[in-house]
Amino acid sequence: MILETVDYIEGKVVIIDQTALPSEEKILRMSGTDEVIEAIMSMRVRGAPAIGIAAAYGVLLTLENFLKSSVREHAGFFFDRRKGIAGIRAVGVDPGSAVEGLHDAAAKLVATRPTAVNLSRAVDRMIKVADENRDDFSRLCARTAEEAFRIHEEQLDSEKRIGDNGAALLRDGMSVLTHCNAGGLATAGYGTALGAIYSAHERGMDIHVYADETRPLLQGARLTAWELLKNGIDVTVLCDNAAASLISSGMIDAVITGADRIASNGDTANKIGTLGVAVLCGRFGVPFYVAAPLSTFDPCTVSGESIPIEHRAQAELIYFNGIRVTPEGARIYNPAFDVTPAELVTAFITEKGIVYPPFGEKIRRLVGRAG
Amino acid sequence: MILETVDYIEGKVVIIDQTALPSEEKILRMSGTDEVIEAIMSMRVRGAPAIGIAAAYGVLLTLENFLKSSVREHAGFFFDRRKGIAGIRAVGVDPGSAVEGLHDAAAKLVATRPTAVNLSRAVDRMIKVADENRDDFSRLCARTAEEAFRIHEEQLDSEKRIGDNGAALLRDGMSVLTHCNAGGLATAGYGTALGAIYSAHERGMDIHVYADETRPLLQGARLTAWELLKNGIDVTVLCDNAAASLISSGMIDAVITGADRIASNGDTANKIGTLGVAVLCGRFGVPFYVAAPLSTFDPCTVSGESIPIEHRAQAELIYFNGIRVTPEGARIYNPAFDVTPAELVTAFITEKGIVYPPFGEKIRRLVGRAG
Repeated sequence: MILETVDYIEGKVVIIDQTALPSEEKILRMSGTDEVIEAIMSMRVRGAPAIGIAAAYGVLLTLENFLKSSVREHAGFFFDRRKGIAGIRAVGVDPGSAVEGLHDAAAKLVATRPTAVNLSRAVDRMIKVADENRDDFSRLCARTAEEAFRIHEEQLDSEKRIGDNGAALLRDGMSVLTHCNAGGLATAGYGTALGAIYSAHERGMDIHVYADETRPLLQGARLTAWELLKNGIDVTVLCDNAAASLISSGMIDAVITGADRIASNGDTANKIGTLGVAVLCGRFGVPFYVAAPLSTFDPCTVSGESIPIEHRAQAELIYFNGIRVTPEGARIYNPAFDVTPAELVTAFITEKGIVYPPFGEKIRRLVGRAG
Repeated sequence: MILETVDYIEGKVVIIDQTALPSEEKILRMSGTDEVIEAIMSMRVRGAPAIGIAAAYGVLLTLENFLKSSVREHAGFFFDRRKGIAGIRAVGVDPGSAVEGLHDAAAKLVATRPTAVNLSRAVDRMIKVADENRDDFSRLCARTAEEAFRIHEEQLDSEKRIGDNGAALLRDGMSVLTHCNAGGLATAGYGTALGAIYSAHERGMDIHVYADETRPLLQGARLTAWELLKNGIDVTVLCDNAAASLISSGMIDAVITGADRIASNGDTANKIGTLGVAVLCGRFGVPFYVAAPLSTFDPCTVSGESIPIEHRAQAELIYFNGIRVTPEGARIYNPAFDVTPAELVTAFITEKGIVYPPFGEKIRRLVGRAG
């Protein structure tokens, strides 16, 4: 099953509001770029690949709105992923001025969340296409929309391949631990780490998933458990603290997580707590796999030390559902990501196959070198 | 500052209800053994040394109530830690029948929480004294009350010594991470792990404490931060997931935790998540200290494998402040403790000094061998 995590439908960016899960499946239809920015910042849409697509759609939505404000009479919407691009006859519109607007939106979108490289990469692709077509308005619209939908389709295609490649590492009856949510909700709809589980499930393997609840925002309990159950897969939720006892007891056959940015040496930024799980895997001899599309590998980042780590609001730890759990006067340390050194990664699961150590040269061959 | 975590005042067991912190300082005055049992099970009073004292007081309260029901006219209460034992003239009361009642209460109290050895040990001490004095009612009352108050006073004395011994390991300006709450709220009122911080603070050292929030019940955020701030000590709260990034970054000079039971080989049961922190310390070269009174060392437990691990209610992970965070259909794994192997413990901080590895013979010498 492919979740409709993020989409572009009849001139609107449509997402499942992940802050409302698991209680409510709330669909947001966003018609303003600012709404998309807010949705990314407040993690209504989250996960490196999903926010990449959402940001590309944020750029496209800016173009949509420029069109709507420039064209007096129009058919209601211009862009739609399934229906394609509505006929645009915007005689007299200045494409250069439209592209300026896209640059402004792009800058705001890139600034929302610094760690996942997918976001800036998707936005860069959109802007590059816009810049290349700034002298012809119809072509600007057609090419920019095509690029956004291509980013989405490529990601979905990658996920299916990642899933199949990951499933080849699993065996019937295995127990797999995952951290945070690297499923359909974090991606174009199929998942990276959970894609491997879904693919194994489709091949008839019985895999039991253990999901770290993943404080502070509980993506494991709220999102991973929700989508696994929706797909008919057994899941056990544990607090992050219980992972050590579970892994040390020999109950886990493999750990698979996603990633937000992978440096060219294999150092991997992912949701806070991933490093702790990787260290446990190293100590207790459990394979630690990272499933990610090539768009998450950043050839411009040499090692984990240069990955910017987002620190999020103190309120995430001070309040829980509006009730104070940390006394006034306490300071808060709330990084959203940590970096797992390459030496703790057993292998990367990508759309182009499994990458085993030593990583450096292999990663560079897959994603190209930095300019 | 010594917290009045648990006390025996005018015929009642008095505790701070820790489930209400940090929002409210709610004092419970319990006049029934069942209330004490409920308070231990629902963690209104928690922490190995504190529940040891609370359970001893639960036995004493049973005697108090036996007396009240047997003696037609009485001065309102019989036992009080500060005022001593009120004159008891219970002519015609059968001490044997009173002792039977104490045995029943003891069995219920011991069954409340299986992991902390302090609880069963304190109850055993109470029952031994009661058994030895079952032929004389006045002596039974006097000796049983003395024993309960002695358990409390010994614990408080141990904590001051543990604090001083622990402080000797610290230096001005250090940053210390702790997990869960091993402070005044977990003990007779001064603390074990936090006792070391308090003693260092009293000697003029500036120690910054990092407190893991400690899911699922957030004892670090709710309790450790609360009592440190009350004592004028700076504290930073982090989610348990962030400990790996903090420890790996070199920001932590030492970790100190408490313990619920220490086997004779040094394997240590403590709050779930402690093992993960200890593994991180091992990997990143940070000293991992366990502060505990000798009453937490169990000569009858040969190694960590034989320590019973309490599993707590699924609701602790399914709901948060009454709001569902885990979807229906998910299973829950919720052990309350894990076991850190002795090889990961840098040293034990006890009232009789610091114990460095190899532990086996030294621990046996300190606490005696199993019968």
